[in-house]
Amino acid sequence: MSRSPGRKQENHKISRELFVLTYGALVAQLCKEYEKDEDVNACLDRMGYSIGIRLIDDFLARSAVKKCRSYSETVDMIAQVAFKMYLGVTPSVSCNSVTGNEFSLILDKNPLVDFVEELPAERASLCYCNLLCGVIRGALEMVHLAAEVSFLQDRLKGDAVTEIGITFLRKPEDRRHRR
Amino acid sequence: MSRSPGRKQENHKISRELFVLTYGALVAQLCKEYEKDEDVNACLDRMGYSIGIRLIDDFLARSAVKKCRSYSETVDMIAQVAFKMYLGVTPSVSCNSVTGNEFSLILDKNPLVDFVEELPAERASLCYCNLLCGVIRGALEMVHLAAEVSFLQDRLKGDAVTEIGITFLRKPEDRRHRR
Repeated sequence: MSRSPGRKQENHKISRELFVLTYGALVAQLCKEYEKDEDVNACLDRMGYSIGIRLIDDFLARSAVKKCRSYSETVDMIAQVAFKMYLGVTPSVSCNSVTGNEFSLILDKNPLVDFVEELPAERASLCYCNLLCGVIRGALEMVHLAAEVSFLQDRLKGDAVTEIGITFLRKPEDRRHRR
Repeated sequence: MSRSPGRKQENHKISRELFVLTYGALVAQLCKEYEKDEDVNACLDRMGYSIGIRLIDDFLARSAVKKCRSYSETVDMIAQVAFKMYLGVTPSVSCNSVTGNEFSLILDKNPLVDFVEELPAERASLCYCNLLCGVIRGALEMVHLAAEVSFLQDRLKGDAVTEIGITFLRKPEDRRHRR
Protein backbone atom coordinates (compact mmCIF):
# COMPACT_ATOMS: atom_id res chain seq x y z
CA MET A 1 0.00 0.00 0.00
CA SER A 2 2.68 2.44 -0.95
CA ARG A 3 1.84 5.62 -2.81
CA SER A 4 4.82 7.39 -4.26
CA PRO A 5 4.18 10.88 -5.55
CA GLY A 6 5.70 11.98 -8.84
CA ARG A 7 9.31 12.77 -7.91
CA LYS A 8 9.77 16.43 -8.56
CA GLN A 9 13.15 18.07 -8.61
CA GLU A 10 14.03 19.00 -5.05
CA ASN A 11 14.98 22.59 -4.60
CA HIS A 12 16.77 24.65 -2.02
CA LYS A 13 13.80 26.74 -1.04
CA ILE A 14 11.73 26.20 2.05
CA SER A 15 8.99 28.13 3.74
CA ARG A 16 10.20 30.80 6.12
CA GLU A 17 7.70 30.10 8.89
CA LEU A 18 9.22 26.83 10.05
CA PHE A 19 12.62 28.48 10.22
CA VAL A 20 11.30 31.49 12.11
CA LEU A 21 9.54 29.32 14.69
CA THR A 22 12.55 27.02 15.06
CA TYR A 23 14.77 30.03 15.58
CA GLY A 24 12.34 31.26 18.22
CA ALA A 25 12.60 27.90 19.98
CA LEU A 26 16.37 28.19 19.94
CA VAL A 27 16.33 31.66 21.49
CA ALA A 28 13.78 30.56 24.09
CA GLN A 29 15.99 27.61 24.99
CA LEU A 30 19.02 29.86 25.46
CA CYS A 31 16.96 32.23 27.59
CA LYS A 32 16.08 29.28 29.79
CA GLU A 33 19.72 28.36 30.04
CA TYR A 34 21.31 31.77 30.56
CA GLU A 35 20.03 34.32 33.00
CA LYS A 36 21.90 37.29 31.52
CA ASP A 37 20.87 38.70 28.16
CA GLU A 38 24.54 39.32 27.39
CA ASP A 39 25.25 35.61 27.66
CA VAL A 40 22.37 34.74 25.34
CA ASN A 41 23.58 37.37 22.87
CA ALA A 42 27.13 36.03 23.00
CA CYS A 43 25.92 32.46 22.53
CA LEU A 44 23.78 33.42 19.53
CA ASP A 45 26.73 35.27 18.05
CA ARG A 46 29.01 32.25 18.53
CA MET A 47 26.45 29.92 16.99
CA GLY A 48 26.01 32.31 14.09
CA TYR A 49 29.76 32.47 13.59
CA SER A 50 29.96 28.68 13.30
CA ILE A 51 27.12 28.78 10.80
CA GLY A 52 28.69 31.62 8.80
CA ILE A 53 32.01 29.86 8.32
CA ARG A 54 30.14 26.90 6.82
CA LEU A 55 27.48 28.85 4.92
CA ILE A 56 30.04 30.87 2.94
CA ASP A 57 30.95 27.87 0.77
CA ASP A 58 27.31 27.33 -0.08
CA PHE A 59 26.93 31.03 -0.84
CA LEU A 60 29.98 31.25 -3.10
CA ALA A 61 29.00 28.08 -4.94
CA ARG A 62 25.39 29.10 -5.52
CA SER A 63 25.72 32.81 -6.10
CA ALA A 64 28.71 32.54 -8.46
CA VAL A 65 29.61 36.12 -7.50
CA LYS A 66 32.91 37.66 -8.47
CA LYS A 67 35.45 38.83 -5.93
CA CYS A 68 34.40 42.15 -4.40
CA ARG A 69 36.85 44.99 -4.86
CA SER A 70 35.74 47.19 -2.00
CA TYR A 71 33.98 47.12 1.36
CA SER A 72 31.09 48.89 -0.29
CA GLU A 73 30.73 46.19 -2.93
CA THR A 74 30.96 43.53 -0.26
CA VAL A 75 28.14 45.03 1.78
CA ASP A 76 25.98 45.40 -1.33
CA MET A 77 26.59 41.73 -2.01
CA ILE A 78 25.52 40.79 1.52
CA ALA A 79 22.36 42.87 1.24
CA GLN A 80 21.27 42.16 -2.29
CA VAL A 81 22.45 38.61 -2.85
CA ALA A 82 23.01 36.91 0.51
CA PHE A 83 20.03 38.31 2.45
CA LYS A 84 17.82 37.78 -0.56
CA MET A 85 19.01 34.20 -0.95
CA TYR A 86 18.88 33.14 2.68
CA LEU A 87 16.12 35.25 4.19
CA GLY A 88 14.11 36.42 1.20
CA VAL A 89 14.50 40.12 2.01
CA THR A 90 16.80 42.86 0.76
CA PRO A 91 17.99 45.40 3.31
CA SER A 92 19.00 48.92 2.33
CA VAL A 93 22.66 49.78 2.73
CA SER A 94 24.14 52.95 4.12
CA CYS A 95 27.75 53.97 4.64
CA ASN A 96 28.31 55.54 8.04
CA SER A 97 31.84 56.87 7.98
CA VAL A 98 34.10 59.02 5.88
CA THR A 99 36.79 56.38 6.26
CA GLY A 100 34.53 54.04 4.32
CA ASN A 101 34.72 51.03 6.59
CA GLU A 102 31.45 51.37 8.53
CA PHE A 103 28.18 50.34 6.98
CA SER A 104 24.63 49.58 7.99
CA LEU A 105 22.13 47.08 6.70
CA ILE A 106 18.69 48.51 7.31
CA LEU A 107 15.66 46.26 7.45
CA ASP A 108 12.20 47.79 7.37
CA LYS A 109 10.92 44.36 8.20
CA ASN A 110 12.89 41.64 9.91
CA PRO A 111 11.75 38.24 8.69
CA LEU A 112 13.12 36.47 11.77
CA VAL A 113 10.66 38.13 14.11
CA ASP A 114 7.43 37.36 12.24
CA PHE A 115 5.96 35.63 15.27
CA VAL A 116 7.49 37.83 17.96
CA GLU A 117 5.46 40.74 19.21
CA GLU A 118 7.84 42.29 21.68
CA LEU A 119 10.58 41.26 24.06
CA PRO A 120 9.50 40.52 27.62
CA ALA A 121 10.41 43.32 30.04
CA GLU A 122 13.01 41.17 31.79
CA ARG A 123 14.78 40.55 28.49
CA ALA A 124 15.27 44.18 27.48
CA SER A 125 18.92 43.73 26.48
CA LEU A 126 18.35 40.64 24.38
CA CYS A 127 19.54 40.94 20.78
CA TYR A 128 16.98 38.47 19.54
CA CYS A 129 18.49 38.11 16.07
CA ASN A 130 22.13 38.16 17.14
CA LEU A 131 22.70 34.91 15.27
CA LEU A 132 22.65 36.97 12.06
CA CYS A 133 25.56 39.11 13.26
CA GLY A 134 27.58 36.00 13.95
CA VAL A 135 26.72 34.55 10.55
CA ILE A 136 27.89 37.70 8.76
CA ARG A 137 31.06 37.91 10.87
CA GLY A 138 31.91 34.25 10.27
CA ALA A 139 31.23 34.39 6.54
CA LEU A 140 33.32 37.57 6.13
CA GLU A 141 36.19 36.06 8.06
CA MET A 142 36.31 33.17 5.63
CA VAL A 143 36.91 35.61 2.77
CA HIS A 144 39.64 37.25 4.86
CA LEU A 145 37.63 40.25 5.99
CA ALA A 146 37.69 40.85 9.72
CA ALA A 147 34.63 42.76 10.85
CA GLU A 148 32.62 43.66 13.91
CA VAL A 149 28.93 43.12 13.40
CA SER A 150 26.21 44.17 15.81
CA PHE A 151 22.68 45.49 16.05
CA LEU A 152 22.52 49.28 16.16
CA GLN A 153 18.73 49.52 16.11
CA ASP A 154 16.04 46.91 16.61
CA ARG A 155 12.32 47.23 15.95
CA LEU A 156 11.75 44.70 18.72
CA LYS A 157 13.11 47.36 21.08
CA GLY A 158 10.90 50.10 19.72
CA ASP A 159 13.26 51.51 17.11
CA ALA A 160 11.79 52.59 13.78
CA VAL A 161 13.88 50.10 11.81
CA THR A 162 16.23 47.21 12.42
CA GLU A 163 19.82 48.16 11.67
CA ILE A 164 22.85 45.89 11.59
CA GLY A 165 26.18 47.70 11.75
CA ILE A 166 29.24 46.25 10.01
CA THR A 167 32.64 47.75 10.77
CA PHE A 168 35.49 46.35 8.72
CA LEU A 169 38.72 46.11 10.67
CA ARG A 170 41.57 47.04 8.45
CA LYS A 171 44.17 44.79 10.01
CA PRO A 172 43.82 41.63 12.08
CA GLU A 173 45.98 43.35 14.75
CA ASP A 174 43.40 46.12 15.16
CA ARG A 175 40.79 43.58 15.86
CA ARG A 176 42.67 41.81 18.57
CA HIS A 177 43.31 45.11 20.33
CA ARG A 178 39.69 46.10 20.17
CA ARG A 179 38.39 42.85 21.58
CA MET B 1 24.90 57.86 1.27
CA SER B 2 21.96 55.54 1.29
CA ARG B 3 21.32 53.08 -1.50
CA SER B 4 17.92 51.56 -1.51
CA PRO B 5 17.40 48.60 -3.82
CA GLY B 6 14.23 48.33 -5.86
CA ARG B 7 11.70 47.01 -3.35
CA LYS B 8 10.66 43.63 -4.58
CA GLN B 9 7.68 41.78 -3.26
CA GLU B 10 8.80 39.82 -0.23
CA ASN B 11 7.97 36.18 -0.34
CA HIS B 12 7.75 33.33 2.08
CA LYS B 13 10.57 31.31 0.64
CA ILE B 14 14.04 31.19 2.04
CA SER B 15 17.09 29.10 1.36
CA ARG B 16 17.18 25.81 3.19
CA GLU B 17 20.85 25.90 4.17
CA LEU B 18 20.50 28.59 6.83
CA PHE B 19 17.63 26.67 8.40
CA VAL B 20 19.51 23.39 8.32
CA LEU B 21 22.59 24.91 9.96
CA THR B 22 20.49 26.73 12.56
CA TYR B 23 18.68 23.52 13.38
CA GLY B 24 22.06 21.82 13.76
CA ALA B 25 23.11 24.55 16.22
CA LEU B 26 19.92 23.95 18.20
CA VAL B 27 20.53 20.20 18.44
CA ALA B 28 24.17 20.76 19.37
CA GLN B 29 23.09 23.16 22.11
CA LEU B 30 20.65 20.63 23.54
CA CYS B 31 23.32 17.93 23.42
CA LYS B 32 25.54 20.22 25.47
CA GLU B 33 22.74 20.72 27.95
CA TYR B 34 21.43 17.19 28.31
CA GLU B 35 23.61 14.18 28.81
CA LYS B 36 20.99 11.60 27.86
CA ASP B 37 19.86 11.25 24.26
CA GLU B 38 16.34 10.55 25.52
CA ASP B 39 16.22 13.98 27.14
CA VAL B 40 17.40 15.69 23.96
CA ASN B 41 14.80 13.74 21.97
CA ALA B 42 12.05 14.69 24.40
CA CYS B 43 13.08 18.33 24.34
CA LEU B 44 13.12 18.42 20.53
CA ASP B 45 9.69 16.81 20.50
CA ARG B 46 8.32 19.39 22.96
CA MET B 47 9.79 22.27 20.97
CA GLY B 48 8.35 20.82 17.79
CA TYR B 49 4.96 20.47 19.43
CA SER B 50 4.95 24.16 20.35
CA ILE B 51 5.91 25.00 16.78
CA GLY B 52 3.26 22.69 15.30
CA ILE B 53 0.40 24.22 17.25
CA ARG B 54 1.37 27.62 15.84
CA LEU B 55 2.34 26.51 12.34
CA ILE B 56 -1.02 24.89 11.66
CA ASP B 57 -2.72 28.30 11.29
CA ASP B 58 -0.15 29.36 8.74
CA PHE B 59 -0.58 26.05 6.93
CA LEU B 60 -4.36 26.22 6.78
CA ALA B 61 -4.29 29.84 5.64
CA ARG B 62 -1.71 29.33 2.92
CA SER B 63 -2.63 25.91 1.62
CA ALA B 64 -6.38 26.55 1.51
CA VAL B 65 -6.90 22.80 1.78
CA LYS B 66 -10.29 21.29 2.41
CA LYS B 67 -11.10 19.26 5.46
CA CYS B 68 -9.66 15.75 5.17
CA ARG B 69 -12.20 12.94 5.40
CA SER B 70 -9.88 10.14 6.42
CA TYR B 71 -6.56 9.44 8.12
CA SER B 72 -5.21 8.44 4.73
CA GLU B 73 -6.15 11.79 3.19
CA THR B 74 -4.64 13.59 6.17
CA VAL B 75 -1.31 11.82 5.80
CA ASP B 76 -1.26 12.52 2.05
CA MET B 77 -1.85 16.17 2.86
CA ILE B 78 1.07 16.19 5.31
CA ALA B 79 3.36 14.53 2.77
CA GLN B 80 2.37 16.28 -0.42
CA VAL B 81 1.37 19.73 0.77
CA ALA B 82 2.93 20.40 4.19
CA PHE B 83 6.34 18.77 3.68
CA LYS B 84 6.57 20.30 0.23
CA MET B 85 5.65 23.73 1.57
CA TYR B 86 7.86 23.76 4.64
CA LEU B 87 10.81 21.56 3.72
CA GLY B 88 10.73 21.44 -0.06
CA VAL B 89 10.54 17.64 -0.22
CA THR B 90 7.71 15.16 -0.69
CA PRO B 91 7.91 11.92 1.28
CA SER B 92 6.24 8.75 0.09
CA VAL B 93 3.35 7.49 2.19
CA SER B 94 2.62 3.96 3.24
CA CYS B 95 -0.14 2.52 5.36
CA ASN B 96 1.15 0.04 7.90
CA SER B 97 -1.93 -1.54 9.44
CA VAL B 98 -5.13 -3.22 8.45
CA THR B 99 -6.93 -1.03 10.98
CA GLY B 100 -5.95 1.94 8.84
CA ASN B 101 -4.60 4.19 11.56
CA GLU B 102 -0.85 3.61 11.19
CA PHE B 103 1.08 5.32 8.45
CA SER B 104 4.64 6.06 7.48
CA LEU B 105 6.21 9.02 5.76
CA ILE B 106 9.30 7.77 3.94
CA LEU B 107 12.05 10.16 3.01
CA ASP B 108 14.75 9.02 0.59
CA LYS B 109 16.57 12.17 1.49
CA ASN B 110 16.12 14.12 4.68
CA PRO B 111 16.67 17.82 4.02
CA LEU B 112 17.38 18.54 7.69
CA VAL B 113 20.60 16.53 7.72
CA ASP B 114 22.31 18.05 4.67
CA PHE B 115 25.35 19.00 6.69
CA VAL B 116 25.37 16.02 9.07
CA GLU B 117 27.51 13.04 8.11
CA GLU B 118 26.75 10.69 10.97
CA LEU B 119 25.90 10.78 14.63
CA PRO B 120 28.82 10.62 17.04
CA ALA B 121 29.18 7.19 18.69
CA GLU B 122 28.17 8.54 22.09
CA ARG B 123 24.92 9.90 20.64
CA ALA B 124 23.67 6.66 19.12
CA SER B 125 20.13 7.06 20.49
CA LEU B 126 19.68 10.64 19.36
CA CYS B 127 16.67 11.24 17.11
CA TYR B 128 18.32 14.17 15.39
CA CYS B 129 15.18 15.34 13.60
CA ASN B 130 12.76 14.67 16.44
CA LEU B 131 11.51 18.25 16.18
CA LEU B 132 9.63 17.17 13.06
CA CYS B 133 7.69 14.54 15.02
CA GLY B 134 6.66 17.17 17.54
CA VAL B 135 5.61 19.57 14.78
CA ILE B 136 3.38 16.94 13.16
CA ARG B 137 1.92 15.89 16.52
CA GLY B 138 1.19 19.49 17.52
CA ALA B 139 -0.34 20.43 14.18
CA LEU B 140 -2.56 17.33 14.14
CA GLU B 141 -3.74 18.00 17.67
CA MET B 142 -4.93 21.43 16.59
CA VAL B 143 -7.21 19.81 14.02
CA HIS B 144 -8.49 17.44 16.73
CA LEU B 145 -6.45 14.44 15.68
CA ALA B 146 -4.48 12.83 18.47
CA ALA B 147 -1.48 10.95 17.15
CA GLU B 148 1.80 9.42 18.18
CA VAL B 149 4.62 10.38 15.89
CA SER B 150 8.13 8.95 15.99
CA PHE B 151 11.07 7.93 13.86
CA LEU B 152 10.94 4.28 12.81
CA GLN B 153 14.04 4.39 10.61
CA ASP B 154 16.76 6.97 10.23
CA ARG B 155 19.45 7.15 7.56
CA LEU B 156 21.66 8.87 10.13
CA LYS B 157 21.63 5.56 12.00
CA GLY B 158 22.47 3.49 8.95
CA ASP B 159 18.94 2.66 7.81
CA ALA B 160 18.22 2.69 4.08
CA VAL B 161 15.61 5.43 4.38
CA THR B 162 14.27 7.83 6.95
CA GLU B 163 10.79 6.82 8.09
CA ILE B 164 8.44 8.76 10.33
CA GLY B 165 5.61 6.70 11.81
CA ILE B 166 2.24 8.30 12.54
CA THR B 167 -0.28 6.37 14.61
CA PHE B 168 -3.68 8.01 14.96
CA LEU B 169 -5.25 7.43 18.36
CA ARG B 170 -8.92 6.86 17.93
CA LYS B 171 -10.07 8.32 21.19
CA PRO B 172 -8.48 10.81 23.52
CA GLU B 173 -8.94 8.26 26.34
CA ASP B 174 -6.75 5.72 24.51
CA ARG B 175 -3.99 8.22 24.32
CA ARG B 176 -3.98 9.06 27.99
CA HIS B 177 -3.77 5.39 28.88
CA ARG B 178 -0.90 4.79 26.49
CA ARG B 179 1.21 7.69 27.73
